[in-house]
Amino acid sequence: MVEFETIIQNFRQEMRRGTLVLAVLTRVDEPQYGYTLITELSNLGMAVEQNTLYPLMRRLEKQGLLDSLWQIEENRPRRYYQISALGRDVRNALITEWQTLEQSMSELLGGPL
Amino acid sequence: MVEFETIIQNFRQEMRRGTLVLAVLTRVDEPQYGYTLITELSNLGMAVEQNTLYPLMRRLEKQGLLDSLWQIEENRPRRYYQISALGRDVRNALITEWQTLEQSMSELLGGPL
Repeated sequence: MVEFETIIQNFRQEMRRGTLVLAVLTRVDEPQYGYTLITELSNLGMAVEQNTLYPLMRRLEKQGLLDSLWQIEENRPRRYYQISALGRDVRNALITEWQTLEQSMSELLGGPL
Repeated sequence: MVEFETIIQNFRQEMRRGTLVLAVLTRVDEPQYGYTLITELSNLGMAVEQNTLYPLMRRLEKQGLLDSLWQIEENRPRRYYQISALGRDVRNALITEWQTLEQSMSELLGGPL
């Protein structure tokens, strides 16, 4: 049933989009570059495409949540990203938001369904 | 700091929008009408406006996840909604999605941050 699959897909996409910023912010205490981050998130069940992640990293840098620096590796320049002090504050606030949501959902799902 | 608050607000809104369908589907095993549902969700930390919830209920009915019936109460017709068999299947699938996400997030947030 197409409709059924569409509803599940939409839910999954919306939740992923929502949590991706927080997921990224949990992985950049050490300088990271995009490709490693994609592998790491994917291993944690958060598969994300380059053309979703790279613009997101640039946006987070613009908003001041990530700092970036270039490093030359294997004769190629690579842009590394690391969380900023502001990024840490935002991360803490998002963790609190997430925990609140988790608590609500746990109550909603806790009854007899 | 406006930017900071905006980021948190966006996160909250996106997560709410994502989870609202599942939240609604957990509350309609018995016939419910919109206003009671709003109160109930709000008590569970899922505040939602009438002009968000009512169109959503109509959409869920159109998709076949909810059945609806009119009842006369206090001399006014009220539209009650109840989950359908398809709605239960979707709910089960969404619960699985939610649990998968929760598991990923728990791993992401489990390290030293």
